[in-house]
Amino acid sequence: MDSYRVLFEPLHKTICVGSKTTLLEAAAKAGIILDKVCGGGRGCGRCKVVVRDGKVRSETAKRLAPEEIERGFVLACRAYPESDLLIEIPEETHSADKLELDKDARRFRAIHPGITQKQFAKSPLVRKIFLTLDRPTLDDNPGDYERLQRALKKTTGISSVHADLKLLCRLPQVLRENDFAVTVTVGTLGDTAEILDIEGGNRSGRNCMAIVDVGTSTIVVHLVDAVEMTTLDAHACYNSQSIYGREVTARIIASEKRGGAHLQELVVGDINRLISALARKNRIRLKDILAVVAAGNTTMAHFLLGLPAGNIRRNPYIAASIEPPPVRATEVGIRIHPAGLLFVVPGISSWVGGDLTAGILATDLHESNETVMLIDVGTNGEIILGNKEWLVACSASTGPALEGASVECGMIAERGAIEKVYLEDDRIHYKVIGHTAPRGICGSGIIDLIAALLDKGIIDRSGRLVEGSDPAVRFEKGCGRFVIVEKEKTQTGKDVFVTQNDIENVITAKAAVFAAAKILVERLNLRFSDIDKLFLAGGFGSYIDRHNAIKIGLLPDLPVSRIHYVGNTSLWGAKLAAFSSEAYRTLHEIRLKTTYYDLIGTSDYVEQFKQAMFLPHTDIELFPSLLDRETSAA
Amino acid sequence: MDSYRVLFEPLHKTICVGSKTTLLEAAAKAGIILDKVCGGGRGCGRCKVVVRDGKVRSETAKRLAPEEIERGFVLACRAYPESDLLIEIPEETHSADKLELDKDARRFRAIHPGITQKQFAKSPLVRKIFLTLDRPTLDDNPGDYERLQRALKKTTGISSVHADLKLLCRLPQVLRENDFAVTVTVGTLGDTAEILDIEGGNRSGRNCMAIVDVGTSTIVVHLVDAVEMTTLDAHACYNSQSIYGREVTARIIASEKRGGAHLQELVVGDINRLISALARKNRIRLKDILAVVAAGNTTMAHFLLGLPAGNIRRNPYIAASIEPPPVRATEVGIRIHPAGLLFVVPGISSWVGGDLTAGILATDLHESNETVMLIDVGTNGEIILGNKEWLVACSASTGPALEGASVECGMIAERGAIEKVYLEDDRIHYKVIGHTAPRGICGSGIIDLIAALLDKGIIDRSGRLVEGSDPAVRFEKGCGRFVIVEKEKTQTGKDVFVTQNDIENVITAKAAVFAAAKILVERLNLRFSDIDKLFLAGGFGSYIDRHNAIKIGLLPDLPVSRIHYVGNTSLWGAKLAAFSSEAYRTLHEIRLKTTYYDLIGTSDYVEQFKQAMFLPHTDIELFPSLLDRETSAA
Repeated sequence: MDSYRVLFEPLHKTICVGSKTTLLEAAAKAGIILDKVCGGGRGCGRCKVVVRDGKVRSETAKRLAPEEIERGFVLACRAYPESDLLIEIPEETHSADKLELDKDARRFRAIHPGITQKQFAKSPLVRKIFLTLDRPTLDDNPGDYERLQRALKKTTGISSVHADLKLLCRLPQVLRENDFAVTVTVGTLGDTAEILDIEGGNRSGRNCMAIVDVGTSTIVVHLVDAVEMTTLDAHACYNSQSIYGREVTARIIASEKRGGAHLQELVVGDINRLISALARKNRIRLKDILAVVAAGNTTMAHFLLGLPAGNIRRNPYIAASIEPPPVRATEVGIRIHPAGLLFVVPGISSWVGGDLTAGILATDLHESNETVMLIDVGTNGEIILGNKEWLVACSASTGPALEGASVECGMIAERGAIEKVYLEDDRIHYKVIGHTAPRGICGSGIIDLIAALLDKGIIDRSGRLVEGSDPAVRFEKGCGRFVIVEKEKTQTGKDVFVTQNDIENVITAKAAVFAAAKILVERLNLRFSDIDKLFLAGGFGSYIDRHNAIKIGLLPDLPVSRIHYVGNTSLWGAKLAAFSSEAYRTLHEIRLKTTYYDLIGTSDYVEQFKQAMFLPHTDIELFPSLLDRETSAA
Repeated sequence: MDSYRVLFEPLHKTICVGSKTTLLEAAAKAGIILDKVCGGGRGCGRCKVVVRDGKVRSETAKRLAPEEIERGFVLACRAYPESDLLIEIPEETHSADKLELDKDARRFRAIHPGITQKQFAKSPLVRKIFLTLDRPTLDDNPGDYERLQRALKKTTGISSVHADLKLLCRLPQVLRENDFAVTVTVGTLGDTAEILDIEGGNRSGRNCMAIVDVGTSTIVVHLVDAVEMTTLDAHACYNSQSIYGREVTARIIASEKRGGAHLQELVVGDINRLISALARKNRIRLKDILAVVAAGNTTMAHFLLGLPAGNIRRNPYIAASIEPPPVRATEVGIRIHPAGLLFVVPGISSWVGGDLTAGILATDLHESNETVMLIDVGTNGEIILGNKEWLVACSASTGPALEGASVECGMIAERGAIEKVYLEDDRIHYKVIGHTAPRGICGSGIIDLIAALLDKGIIDRSGRLVEGSDPAVRFEKGCGRFVIVEKEKTQTGKDVFVTQNDIENVITAKAAVFAAAKILVERLNLRFSDIDKLFLAGGFGSYIDRHNAIKIGLLPDLPVSRIHYVGNTSLWGAKLAAFSSEAYRTLHEIRLKTTYYDLIGTSDYVEQFKQAMFLPHTDIELFPSLLDRETSAA
């Protein structure tokens, strides 16, 4: 097969690829993430690049304007090299990883109020311990390994200490060359410890870990100091697997076609890049990072570990493992300390992953006296309901509309995204991330917008745009759209708008979440009013307007004082586990304690879902506060 | 460096070696064990080979007769190739591995009477279990791994079940291709189990293990059926490491010079050959052998695992590990099931190894109401003393005289060895293994001979040959010897004899054992008469005449009814552990319970040793039964 050299500018990265590789895939291989909402190959029109030199084979792309085609623009997802290439990535196409995402990552550092956080005893999953062993004598003559075990038991109190043969082979020399003063790197799990490494002298000073939130769309890494139990820094990037689709199911299909190893390579590459950047910036050597603790949905956990994920998408939806064992980080290709460990937070089921288990731990939901609902909406929606007595979980297939994808002008919550929409003086106003001209609209903006459109009667309760209700409502070939910002005021020179189809996608997503929540509550013979606290987790939860979320029927009609943004509880829970093997053990107990309801197996789900396809709901009685307002308004 | 092809006939084995490799080493590399008592390179004159074709560089060897030199004989330990070679190995030189040794191996199958053997619950360290898992449904939807764990816990009762990532990756496919009916290979250790392998369908029928006694001179392998708990067959061979010396210390020095990996290669090669031969003969596939359980002295355990042994020979004599963890057999190069485990029985100290721990387990010494002494004399002597309340151990450096080595006409107890010597009609008679003309004398024969010589006044109580006491006593250049068999009646055409020096070597060895036993008894404020039972273990113990052993002062003066041959308790104990993880666990407890006395650190050892350098002892009062006889004879 022919192989061509593709140079991407201005990043000055080169990669060699065959003639059957799209430029989008080539960019991903070179570690460059291009903006694409559709997930690649579906023609969202975001992955525009300019061919500066060389020849490409490109499929017709109706998303490109004639003047763009003239200037050499192609869609990277549909262009294949036919010679060596020089490709320019326009500023608008290159994902602004290092900008808003990192701010976002930092924002997740502290847990939000409304949560009583349990204190766990400090005992990092992996740590370095400096030991001064008694020197052997004729009267004190156990083997070197047994002497080391004795010292470690004395220091840690752990009775069962193991090591592998390779370490044992090095042990006699390391001990004697360092006068029996050594630093051991020890992984702890329950009441057993494994000696991962041994070094001469006192090397116990630095003891870092990387905490990873493996999201379907975004990967966040926190670099933490396990001695001080502090967060040193945070970085985030898009999940490179996005070239194979925004949704989990699309990724699984890709993994079945291209092999799971390929998907693993992409996510591990992302994690390695983030860890390296954090290490460099904070002057930490990779070998001082002793462990990675990762939480994500079950499919992401599979990809990270290289487990076959195919059965997750097929009835009865079975994971290869929902509580995989800790492994050496090198086994999956993560570059930290050569003997460092990778812990993947256990999930609850194929569709309720470790991010939720971590969320329960972080919010102390499993020990709560009050009844709490935790909603995490990312590219999928997961709901936990429970208290210290019982825990139930379910998953709703929302699609990525609530994250700003599957919406034509949708985008992730980064620079240039309309993140808030509100009515003032009966006119629609908006707020853009980064205070620039808008490029598109993100999830929180869309929720606000739909609420505003409903308030102003621009859409009806079924979400249909009402012709003539506003000058911004336009119809073209029978398709309606609402223009939020005219092209003169945008970054792209094109209107930012929502289509009738976009609105329907959002309604479908919110209906899925609401129906799932309702079934969960009813299954336990409760009413929504029995929920003492509603926690909104994940990136989604941090931004949305609670009133508007109720208004469109995404959230149940609770007093907003009961609704709390809890931030990235996935990351927070993983961090708690990293710092305390007691907390890690608790994740296992949470998994065992939580009952998973598969909505596919629930006869009334389709019916409930249909009823929720209105704004806020077919049964308006479920939203008494809105009813009151409507009544009072009338 | 030049490389030459050496073809060994009649075995028809070829090996390529450089010009600095002796023919002895070349033979070992080709898997051929030549007879050599000295351990190689010391000129015992046993490793004679004939150069049929090609040129060798050979050092003058005074051990060769002129006619032998004329016929092309060289000593393999002193000959180096200078061209491609055709070497003939004379029948007398090639060790008769498959003859007496295998009989010997079989002889060790049953434990000897005098021992109350504890029954352990059957739970092999590694086993195959056939499982029919419930098929997953929407309501019963744990991950595949968690489903497998659940089924295994139900079957085995073990709560903690692990597997590695590679197995997890294969799991979903294996389960579904076999309709959830699978056979798992499981290693058990205490209350945790590790899934080593998974296969489709029911493959649980065959479940074999190899039990290995890694002796310094001999390696014995028993092939056992772990389902039926029976011994299928046994094979033995010489330890190929013998080319580097008969004694443990010489081997350690060799490992320091040539690298431990080389010594490991030799012993692993021996074990692999024995296992392969047993498997072939019994129509068992190597992959049906799931575990190797090996017991040996601490140095042999180090070589087997590739652990550095250097500190074992240096004050304060510290092992790298005396209780090494189980490892995958492939990690050391043993060819059984690819995921099979190697368990090395824990030792007690650097100089009291796993063979003794296994011996204690096999004889139930640690639970005995009576006070028992266990003596195991191989190339080294180890002594255990104890009962259910306490256990002490020590080691005596005997040298290999009591095994027939470091004795000029000495040989291992195989075909052609004088194994018994007795007085009848006041004349010396002997018995040869295999009922052929003698080639030499083995350990049991030497003990008998010295007792007989003492009885007849041919040697005095200090072991000196008395000139003129017998026609067979001859002096040459001031060196005395006693001719046992004249050259006309031997296989070799040369006299079989013992020299004054040989006798001194035996007395040194027996003095070392006796002094160690005496110190151990005195340290506990006991007398020899407090010993209720004396167990003689190892190959040594199976053959010697108890009366004669007392007469020369090797064993303490106990009624012979208290002295029991217990056979190869090392192998027996290892076998018990292989069949029962409870028994394996007991080995650990025995190790912790047993106190090791290092005689080097004992101020009175040298004095005690000197006193024991008489026949039977300087203090004849210690041997009242002999005193009685002497008195009654007077």
